[in-house]
Amino acid sequence: MHILEFQEMMRRIYLQRDLERGMKGTYDWLVDEIGELGEALESGQKDAAGKEFADVLAWLASLANTVGTDLETAAIEKYNNKCPRCGCCPCRCKP
Amino acid sequence: MHILEFQEMMRRIYLQRDLERGMKGTYDWLVDEIGELGEALESGQKDAAGKEFADVLAWLASLANTVGTDLETAAIEKYNNKCPRCGCCPCRCKP
Repeated sequence: MHILEFQEMMRRIYLQRDLERGMKGTYDWLVDEIGELGEALESGQKDAAGKEFADVLAWLASLANTVGTDLETAAIEKYNNKCPRCGCCPCRCKP
Repeated sequence: MHILEFQEMMRRIYLQRDLERGMKGTYDWLVDEIGELGEALESGQKDAAGKEFADVLAWLASLANTVGTDLETAAIEKYNNKCPRCGCCPCRCKP
């Protein structure tokens, strides 16, 4: 599934709720989901972590929908087969 | 671009660095990027926010690479054209 298709699916399912909650409220939910992902990773439960990865991606797409950002275009513009800092693949930036 | 293609592009560019940094260090970077996204959104600068959205997606993919999670499969398994809680599209969950 394309990044854009996933974002559009989130729009179909959640746009009304996302707009009612607003950008700030949706950002706060994303932060909570990042915390839950961290807990799932710490626990070492791969299935639980997979669901939390899905939630983070879903809330990131919802947040992008609240401000009209196309995640796929943004991602390709910045990361286009090379590191945007060193211009290399693989990245050769100093640690 | 498919979600999986983006994750594989991140693997090609960054896997060695991501594995050296490890899951916990990569998670910490993701948390920092979430903070930067919040600041860009607060500032109202759409171009800056677009770059931060790209960074969050990139670090989320890097983090998934450190633990061997396929983001696209995880996302489709949980969100398959309906809200996983209420089973509806659009979502009818209570606020």
